[in-house]
Amino acid sequence: MTKQSQISRRQFVGTAISAAAVGSLPMQNFLASSWGDTPNTSNPDWKDEGVLFVDKSPYAKLRNVPVRAVTITQGFWGARREINVDKSIPSMEKLLESNGRMNNYLRLVGKSDAQQHGPVYSDSDVYKWTEAVGFALQSGDRPELRALTDKIIKEVVAVQEPSGYLNTYYVGDHAKERMDPDVQRWGHELYNLGHMIQGAIAYYRATGDRTLLDAGIRFVDGYLLPNFGPGADKKPIFSGHPEIELALVELYRTTGDKRYLEFAGYILQGDDRIKVPQRAYVYHFCGIPFTSRTHLEGHAVRAMYACCGATDYYLETGDPSYLKTLNVLWDDLVSAQMYVTGGVGARSQGEAFGDSYELPNFTAYGESCAAIGNMMWNWRMLTATGDAKYADVIERALYNGINSGMSLDGTLYCYRNPLAFDPSGGDQIRNPWYDTTCCPPNLERTFASLPGYFYSTSKDGLYLHLYDNSQLDWHLEDGTSLRVVQKTNYPWDGTAEIAVTPAKPTEFTFYLRIPGWSNGTQVAVNGKPISGVTPGQYLALPRRWSPGDEIHVKFGMTPQVIEANHRVVEDYGRVAVQRGPLVYCLEQLDQPEGVALYDVSMDLRHGPASQFQEEFRSDVLGGIVMLKHMGAVDEKSGSGGGLYYPYTPNTPKARQVELRFIPYYAWANRAGTPMQVWTPILRA
Amino acid sequence: MTKQSQISRRQFVGTAISAAAVGSLPMQNFLASSWGDTPNTSNPDWKDEGVLFVDKSPYAKLRNVPVRAVTITQGFWGARREINVDKSIPSMEKLLESNGRMNNYLRLVGKSDAQQHGPVYSDSDVYKWTEAVGFALQSGDRPELRALTDKIIKEVVAVQEPSGYLNTYYVGDHAKERMDPDVQRWGHELYNLGHMIQGAIAYYRATGDRTLLDAGIRFVDGYLLPNFGPGADKKPIFSGHPEIELALVELYRTTGDKRYLEFAGYILQGDDRIKVPQRAYVYHFCGIPFTSRTHLEGHAVRAMYACCGATDYYLETGDPSYLKTLNVLWDDLVSAQMYVTGGVGARSQGEAFGDSYELPNFTAYGESCAAIGNMMWNWRMLTATGDAKYADVIERALYNGINSGMSLDGTLYCYRNPLAFDPSGGDQIRNPWYDTTCCPPNLERTFASLPGYFYSTSKDGLYLHLYDNSQLDWHLEDGTSLRVVQKTNYPWDGTAEIAVTPAKPTEFTFYLRIPGWSNGTQVAVNGKPISGVTPGQYLALPRRWSPGDEIHVKFGMTPQVIEANHRVVEDYGRVAVQRGPLVYCLEQLDQPEGVALYDVSMDLRHGPASQFQEEFRSDVLGGIVMLKHMGAVDEKSGSGGGLYYPYTPNTPKARQVELRFIPYYAWANRAGTPMQVWTPILRA
Repeated sequence: MTKQSQISRRQFVGTAISAAAVGSLPMQNFLASSWGDTPNTSNPDWKDEGVLFVDKSPYAKLRNVPVRAVTITQGFWGARREINVDKSIPSMEKLLESNGRMNNYLRLVGKSDAQQHGPVYSDSDVYKWTEAVGFALQSGDRPELRALTDKIIKEVVAVQEPSGYLNTYYVGDHAKERMDPDVQRWGHELYNLGHMIQGAIAYYRATGDRTLLDAGIRFVDGYLLPNFGPGADKKPIFSGHPEIELALVELYRTTGDKRYLEFAGYILQGDDRIKVPQRAYVYHFCGIPFTSRTHLEGHAVRAMYACCGATDYYLETGDPSYLKTLNVLWDDLVSAQMYVTGGVGARSQGEAFGDSYELPNFTAYGESCAAIGNMMWNWRMLTATGDAKYADVIERALYNGINSGMSLDGTLYCYRNPLAFDPSGGDQIRNPWYDTTCCPPNLERTFASLPGYFYSTSKDGLYLHLYDNSQLDWHLEDGTSLRVVQKTNYPWDGTAEIAVTPAKPTEFTFYLRIPGWSNGTQVAVNGKPISGVTPGQYLALPRRWSPGDEIHVKFGMTPQVIEANHRVVEDYGRVAVQRGPLVYCLEQLDQPEGVALYDVSMDLRHGPASQFQEEFRSDVLGGIVMLKHMGAVDEKSGSGGGLYYPYTPNTPKARQVELRFIPYYAWANRAGTPMQVWTPILRA
Repeated sequence: MTKQSQISRRQFVGTAISAAAVGSLPMQNFLASSWGDTPNTSNPDWKDEGVLFVDKSPYAKLRNVPVRAVTITQGFWGARREINVDKSIPSMEKLLESNGRMNNYLRLVGKSDAQQHGPVYSDSDVYKWTEAVGFALQSGDRPELRALTDKIIKEVVAVQEPSGYLNTYYVGDHAKERMDPDVQRWGHELYNLGHMIQGAIAYYRATGDRTLLDAGIRFVDGYLLPNFGPGADKKPIFSGHPEIELALVELYRTTGDKRYLEFAGYILQGDDRIKVPQRAYVYHFCGIPFTSRTHLEGHAVRAMYACCGATDYYLETGDPSYLKTLNVLWDDLVSAQMYVTGGVGARSQGEAFGDSYELPNFTAYGESCAAIGNMMWNWRMLTATGDAKYADVIERALYNGINSGMSLDGTLYCYRNPLAFDPSGGDQIRNPWYDTTCCPPNLERTFASLPGYFYSTSKDGLYLHLYDNSQLDWHLEDGTSLRVVQKTNYPWDGTAEIAVTPAKPTEFTFYLRIPGWSNGTQVAVNGKPISGVTPGQYLALPRRWSPGDEIHVKFGMTPQVIEANHRVVEDYGRVAVQRGPLVYCLEQLDQPEGVALYDVSMDLRHGPASQFQEEFRSDVLGGIVMLKHMGAVDEKSGSGGGLYYPYTPNTPKARQVELRFIPYYAWANRAGTPMQVWTPILRA
C-alpha cells in the first residue's frame, strides 16, 4: 500500500462535530450517559480526539487536531512512519510474544506456562505497543492489526480481578505485596496502569472500542479510588514512576469524570504518610508537592513524565503555582540540562539528570524514552501557551534525539543515545530487544502519533508546528472545514509550499512556525513577501483565507556551527554542526582512511560561506544531505603520544583533511564505527 | 613532642643484622622455629622488615629499608606525618569506637549491645587503623598508642573461633552463609582477613607482638587452607575484593611458610568451579587467571590491590607471564587510565575504571583508596625493577591524588578526589567519617608508612626515591652502616643537600632519582657537577663514598603547562599546571571577586618565562607556593548566555584577570568553593 493510496481513501469531509454541542453538559457526565459496556461506535467523539483531548480544557490555548486529520505523505517522516507501521510495530508484537510478555497474562488463566517473564513493568510494554497500534489505526494504517490487537486486549482484560486490579506480576505469592509502600516505590503498579490507560485511550480513539478503556476505568474506580487517597480511611500513594498522573488527566478528559483529575492532583502533591529517604524524592521525582520543585533531577524519564502530568493538571485547573514551577523547570532544562539533540539525562547511574551543565557525550545516557518524555512535555506546554519555544524543543528532540532511537530499517533500537561513541568498548548500541524494553514501543507510539503534532487550532485560527509533505483535513474551531497541503523537501531543502483551502473564504489567522534555528527566512502569501519574520516565533498571518491561497516559505539552510556554554566541560573548544532542524555528526567510516575522529578538528578561520559543501546522497542512509568540511588532522595527539605532555600549540603540525558529516539520527546504521557530535576547533 | 626530640632519641647504630644469617635456613622454617605464642622480642628480625620484607625475594631488585630507619624531619611530609599521628590516628580510633566497630567484637563475648554495626567489611577498618598504628610505632611515634592498640587487639582475638575463623558479621544467623560462593563475591571475608594480616604484620614489625599475627595465621592455617583450595576435596575460592593475595604473600615473607605463597597463586589464578556472570570478572578483578588480563577495568581499588598481589607473587616466583601482564596493565594505566593527580577510577558507578581516556573531571571518582593502591602497586613494581618510571607514579599519586584525601588538619577525608568541583551541587567532599570508611584509615596507614618509601637498597648501593628533610640510618646490603641526611625545602624549592655518611669509606652506587617532570636539573657531588642527568631515571653515582660527602641537587621548578591527549574529551582545549611534583588547581575563592572559574582561561601566547609569578605564602593553607598567572575572563559564555549559541571566537570580548593557583592537594580546606585542575586556553 503506498501513501498515495492512503490519501485517496480520505475524504475532504470537513466533519465539523462541534465541541460546543456537548460542552454545555455538566462536565462530570458529559459523555458517561451515552456509554455502555459494549463498544459504542454511534458516539463519534472518539474520532475527533487528538493526541491530547483538550477541547474542553480551560487553560489550553491550543486544541489538538485528531491524528486521522493529518496524512503524512511521501517524505522524511512519511518514510519513518511507513517503516514504523510496516516493520517495527509488527516485529515488536512478535518479540513481546516470544519474550513471554503475553504469557504473563495467559498463565493467569491457565493458558500458558506458569513462569512470570520480565521485570515488574513488563505489562507496560504491551500497553505501549497497544497505544502504537491505536495511533496507527487512527491514521488508517494497517487495519489488519485490529484483529490481533483485539485478541491481545481480550487476553489482557481476561485476568482483571473482580476488584478491578490488573497486573501480571503482583499475583500469587506476590499478591500480598500489592501497593505496599516499598512496592509503590519500585513496583511500577501505577506506571503499568498509566500505560494501560494511555494505550486504551489511543485504541478507543482509533476504533471506538472501549474494552481496554473500561478495564482501566474498573481498575481506577474499583480498586484505586476506594482504597487510596488523602482521607484518613484511605491508604497513601507514592507514584514511584510518574506516568499515572498524565494518564488520569487524559482519562478525565476522555470520560469527564472529575475524580480522575482530582486524584492526579493528589498524586502530584505527594502524601507525606509515605516516608522515603530524601534521595527518593529526587530519583522518583514524586512524593513531594510538584510545585516545590526548582530543578530537574533524578531519573530523567520519571521527571519528564511528572512534568507532563503536571502540565496536564495545569491545563485543566489553571493553578498558577503549577505554571510557575513548570516555567522554572523548563528554563532549567533548556539552559543547563538538555543535549543539543534534545536528549536529556546525562548519567547512566540512575538513568538520571546530572548537575547543571553536566552533559558528557561519550557517557551520555539520553534514553530514548526521556527524549520522548521531553517532546510530550513540550507538546503540553505548547498546548497551554502557543509559545513557539516549546515547538523548537519538540522539533529538536523529534528530528535528533528521538529519531536516533530507531534504526533506519525500523528493527533495532537505541536505549542510550550518546553524542560520542567508540565501539571498541564493546557496547552494542542498537538492539532488537531489551529486557527492559521501554524504549522500542515508546518510539513506535511516538512515530505512529506524529500526524497529531503537525497542527493545532486556536480560537482565532490554525497553528502549523511541523514541516513535511502532508495534508490536513480538519476544521477551524468555528466549524469551517479546512484543508492544508504542505509540499516540501524539508528538512533537506528549506522551501515549503503550503496550500490553504477553507471550505469557503474565511477570516482567520494562520500561525506559521518560524524555527528558532532559522535565519534569513522568507515568507510570501500568494507571492507577496511578508515582513516581520522572527525566528523562534509563530508568524501570524491574519487574512481572509480563500481556496487557492498559498504560503511560500524559504528557510536559510546554511549549516550552522554551534558552540556550547563553556560550563559544559566536554564541549569546550568544540563545536556542533546543525543544518535546518538536523544536528550532524561525524562517523569514522565516512572519513578518509587512517584518519581517527579524535585527531580531527574543524577549520573555522575562513568564515561561514566556505565552511561546508552540501551534497544530497540518495545512496547513503536512505538519502541524506551530507556535509563536507575542509578540516584538519593532527596525528600527534590522539593516536600517538602519551596521556599527558607539555603544552604546545598544534596548528603547525596539522594537515588538511575533508571531513564528512551525516545527520545524527542516522548514526550507527552501518558498521560499528566511532561517532562524535562535538568536534574540536583548530586552534590558531 | 617536637620532631627534634624524636630525632635525638634515635641512635646512629647501624644495626647490621645480616639477612644472610637466617637466609640459609630452609625457607619454610626459617623463623617459625623461634616463635611461640607469646611476644618474642628476643628475635630482632621484625625490626628490620620494611613496608615489604623482600630481602629474600628472588626477583626483587631492591630491598625495602625499615620504616624506623628513616626519620622524616620538619618539612612537607613531616607536617603531614605529625598531624597524622597526633590527630588523625587518635581521632579515627574514637570514631571507630563511637560507630560501633569495636562493639562488633565485644558483642560476641557479651560485652556490648547485640547489634552489628556497619557494612560487612567493617572489621577491615579496625585492621587498617591497627596497621597505621603499627607504622607509627615503627617510627617511634606516639608510643602511648601501644597500650590502646594492645587492648583492641585483645578484643579482636577474643572472638576468634576454635577453627580460626574470625569475622564479626558472619556469626549467629549469618554464620551459615560463610564462604558461600555469593558471599565470597560480596561478603569481604577474605578482604577482612587480608587487612587483618597486613595490620598484624605492621604491628608485629613495630613491637614484636605476635598476638594479632598469630590470630591471622590461625585463620589461614586452621580454617582457610584445610577447607579451601584447588583439590577436589576442597572448596573453591573467589577473591571478591582482592587484598588477601598481597597479604598472603607478605605473610609468607614474614613466616617463610610457602603454603601462603602458593595459596595466593591459586587465588590469583581463579577457580572456575565458582561461576559468576562475565561482568563479575571485570568488576571484582579476580576469578580468571590474572595473567589473562590485558586491561584495567572494573572496581579500581580491587584492580589495584589485585595488581599488588600479582606483583608480590612475581617478586617471589619470577613467573614471566605475571611480569608480562603487569607491564601490559601498567602501560594501560599510564597511557589511558590515570588522572594527572595519580588518581584512578573514572566512574562513580561501580567505583570503576572507565573506558580508555574516559577521565572526566567533575564526575571523577578517584577514590583515595585507589590512588593508594596505585602507589602500593608501583612500589612493588619499583621493588621488582628499580625503574624510575614507577617512582614517578608514586610521587605523582602521593603528592596529589593521595595527599588530597586528608584535610590539612588531619580530621576530614575525601572518599572521591575529583579534578573539578562545584559545591552548589550540595556535595560535601571532606567528611570525618563514612559508613564505608575504607579511605580514612587507608590514608592514615599510608602516611604513617611514608618513611619506608624514601630509600631502597640494592646489591650495589642505595636508591633515593623521595626528597624531603629526613635522615636515613641504615646499612648497605654488605652490612656497612650508612647515614644519609637530606636538607631541602622540597617541593617548594628545587634544591636539596644530601649528606652521605657511610661508617667508613665504601665503594657503592648512590642512585639519585631524577623525576620525570624535572628539567634543567643540576647535580653536583662535593661541588663537582655531574653530567648525564636524565629526567625519569635514577642518576647512578658510583664512587668511594666517605663521611663528609655531599650531593647537591637543583631541580628546575618553573611551572609546567600540561596538555592531555586529545582523546581525554574533558581536557580538550584545557591545560593543567604542575610545579615540581605538585599539580595545581584554581579555587574560586582565590580569584578576584565576581570572576567565575568557568569563565576564565589561560593566556599562553607569551611563552613560559612570563607565564607565572611564584609567591610563597606562609599564611595560606599551611604554607604554599601560590602561582599567579595573567589570564583572561570572558563573562559571555559561562555565567551569561544560553546553553547553545552560534560559534564566534571569544578573544575580543575577554579581559585580563590575575588567576591564582594553589596545589591540588590543599583544595577544599577553606570555604566550599568551585575548583578546577584543567583550565581552558585562551583561543587566539
